Amino acid sequence: MGNTFSEFELYSQLKNQDTKLWDKYVYHPFVCQIGAGTLAKECFQRYLGQDYLFLIHFARAYGLAAYKSDNIDDIRVAANAMISIIDKEISLHLEYCHSWGLYKDYLEALDELTATIAYTRYVLEKGLQGDLVDLFVALAPCIIGYSEIGTRLANDPNTNLDNNPYSSWIAMYSGEEYQQVARQHAEMLDKLWAERAGKERLSKIRETFSQAVRLEVNFWQMGLNGNL
Amino acid sequence: MGNTFSEFELYSQLKNQDTKLWDKYVYHPFVCQIGAGTLAKECFQRYLGQDYLFLIHFARAYGLAAYKSDNIDDIRVAANAMISIIDKEISLHLEYCHSWGLYKDYLEALDELTATIAYTRYVLEKGLQGDLVDLFVALAPCIIGYSEIGTRLANDPNTNLDNNPYSSWIAMYSGEEYQQVARQHAEMLDKLWAERAGKERLSKIRETFSQAVRLEVNFWQMGLNGNL
Amino acid sequence: MGNTFSEFELYSQLKNQDTKLWDKYVYHPFVCQIGAGTLAKECFQRYLGQDYLFLIHFARAYGLAAYKSDNIDDIRVAANAMISIIDKEISLHLEYCHSWGLYKDYLEALDELTATIAYTRYVLEKGLQGDLVDLFVALAPCIIGYSEIGTRLANDPNTNLDNNPYSSWIAMYSGEEYQQVARQHAEMLDKLWAERAGKERLSKIRETFSQAVRLEVNFWQMGLNGNL
Amino acid sequence: MGNTFSEFELYSQLKNQDTKLWDKYVYHPFVCQIGAGTLAKECFQRYLGQDYLFLIHFARAYGLAAYKSDNIDDIRVAANAMISIIDKEISLHLEYCHSWGLYKDYLEALDELTATIAYTRYVLEKGLQGDLVDLFVALAPCIIGYSEIGTRLANDPNTNLDNNPYSSWIAMYSGEEYQQVARQHAEMLDKLWAERAGKERLSKIRETFSQAVRLEVNFWQMGLNGNL
Repeated sequence: MGNTFSEFELYSQLKNQDTKLWDKYVYHPFVCQIGAGTLAKECFQRYLGQDYLFLIHFARAYGLAAYKSDNIDDIRVAANAMISIIDKEISLHLEYCHSWGLYKDYLEALDELTATIAYTRYVLEKGLQGDLVDLFVALAPCIIGYSEIGTRLANDPNTNLDNNPYSSWIAMYSGEEYQQVARQHAEMLDKLWAERAGKERLSKIRETFSQAVRLEVNFWQMGLNGNL
Repeated sequence: MGNTFSEFELYSQLKNQDTKLWDKYVYHPFVCQIGAGTLAKECFQRYLGQDYLFLIHFARAYGLAAYKSDNIDDIRVAANAMISIIDKEISLHLEYCHSWGLYKDYLEALDELTATIAYTRYVLEKGLQGDLVDLFVALAPCIIGYSEIGTRLANDPNTNLDNNPYSSWIAMYSGEEYQQVARQHAEMLDKLWAERAGKERLSKIRETFSQAVRLEVNFWQMGLNGNL
Repeated sequence: MGNTFSEFELYSQLKNQDTKLWDKYVYHPFVCQIGAGTLAKECFQRYLGQDYLFLIHFARAYGLAAYKSDNIDDIRVAANAMISIIDKEISLHLEYCHSWGLYKDYLEALDELTATIAYTRYVLEKGLQGDLVDLFVALAPCIIGYSEIGTRLANDPNTNLDNNPYSSWIAMYSGEEYQQVARQHAEMLDKLWAERAGKERLSKIRETFSQAVRLEVNFWQMGLNGNL
Repeated sequence: MGNTFSEFELYSQLKNQDTKLWDKYVYHPFVCQIGAGTLAKECFQRYLGQDYLFLIHFARAYGLAAYKSDNIDDIRVAANAMISIIDKEISLHLEYCHSWGLYKDYLEALDELTATIAYTRYVLEKGLQGDLVDLFVALAPCIIGYSEIGTRLANDPNTNLDNNPYSSWIAMYSGEEYQQVARQHAEMLDKLWAERAGKERLSKIRETFSQAVRLEVNFWQMGLNGNL
């Protein structure tokens, strides 16, 4: 049930190193309440607003990835991801936010909450301190994790899809287009790993991945409880 | 009462742009309870542990400042600050933590809390995205603010200095050596401002300063309440 | 004769600060020999090969610009420039090189010459050390200068357009599409200047611009004489 | 004859991957003429002036290394190297330049030549694009290579030490203090290699090392022939 990306070696290894932590993320009450359709509207709205701010730093992260690349193919992967965020995801997100009563002016005036700052700046700074491997590892729990969450919710018999205000959110992250994005990220992880790393580096990479997962857990928690 | 660094133009302007926010920081309950000597021991210990992790990123921030400098004098200022953190502050901090029952092994195994990640990575990433002005502005609430807090507590008739487990903390941040560090930072702000900026840039600088103050408020709050 | 972009304030100021240096660049013998159609084929081929390597770092520079941006509009400008280099300019360049007998395998195996390393890394490192203003100023002599060179050659009665192996090169840099790219860069310079700088910063910006022009002069000279 | 640092694994492997290129560097005519005491005074002066500008970026490189470090020990190594450049090497260099008739005002007004820009910015940018391994590999030909050159010249029977205006230069780079600096760099290479890399990464590391050696060859050539 759900796409676990088990065919990708590095990602699988990182995800499975601490399944308790991973489950805190992918089975977070915020996620479960989305599946059940019971999440309070203001929690989802808070999450959506911060996610808008997140997307801006996410696009910047791909700009950084392009800069950090040393060949045209890797630059192209990053450039396409960035263009897709800038030209498509942000517009879709704005429309979606609009449908939840959050207008552009409101979104642009929002303060960034601590959970948002912590995750986005952790990823960017890790990528600047380290190399492309570090950057892609720090991004992985978000990019690939959302696709795992999306497909699981879409396929879970407990999920309430018919009468659920969050069904379009589930559809987006379980959709083939998003799965493609996640798969490409997992592929890049294995490719970069083969080029720039080795088992010696695994312990540092593991710390980065776990920290990023913890910050994603906080991000859901912020949705539930406000600034955390 | 207390050193307000009002002779430094940019710092004063930034601090006074939102006195309500500034007061949330310098009169935070955590600070007041330090002055009164009533802060719960476990809150102070939690703060001390995170402050140890903070110092490592703080030293890295001065490494970044040295890299970002374009002349020997500015590199020297950053190099001296970094050496002082690495050779002196960290040893003092370890001794001090030890006296509170926090041993080196414990400190090195600590998870970084969200409030710590948010502030340290915000500062570093702001410095990498922007220039030396952005980096020094993001550091200012911490470096100069602590000296203001220290001198105020030391001179406040309400402060309980005689029978206060936190009196050595107050002595450190109100001491002449720390005042010197803070003064140098305020001077650099005015110097860099004169060289690299102008009133056009003030609105962006203000946002950076306010965000850094908010993250410092969170850092105190983390001391009181755990991971925030 | 030629587009001098005199309507853009910062660019005009920088270009006119040292007209002797600027003329060394835009009237370099390499440029004049292109106009006359007399440039030795091997000089042009050497230039083309290095220009291919240059394009890769140029795309990386726009990745860096996207990372350094703090709002969606600025990220979009950088993302579009990067995508246009990756999806269009590099393909065109490969076709063009092919027509001059330089095949992809050959280009990818080329050593980077010192003049290429000096200019590309100067630009990238200046952008990393400083902020978006520094990066865009360091890029300006290349991006806007080429459009000035292109339009001047296209309109100069002394230019031999009919029987000139380099006429398609002239057509490209004088064409409306490239003029648009250059105009957008000049606009961004004025916009960023208004947001992030002021006359205080002019002397540092001037050094950056002059250094970048000198490195462009070297790049032409490398075409004429080999590794310089 | 001479210290070849053969006990350090990564350095030895990199140096020996292309002995022809390495010999171009360590037996460059500029080096041999220093040994023989026959180098033209103006060539040495040109080299000394550019070496002064080089030192500033070299100090910045250690600032970057401190920023890129993820633990106190590595930060300390970088901080100590930086302080030693700023407080000692630059003063010694200024005195030494003075003895050759190059005064501080003259040095500070010098234009950076292309060979200087190419090497310094290549190193810094490589360190920013990649991680600490990339930065230390790009620095290695300079730091460790000079100590190899120094000890070889000091021990070579062909070297004219008695009546040689460059004997103090040879003494400095063959001296125990400088050998210590080089040894520490070679140690850090092996340490970082064990922590962050593996044989998978060797081909990229080799390119970086070779490029840095080529840029060092150019630096000597600039001494002999002016701007190259």
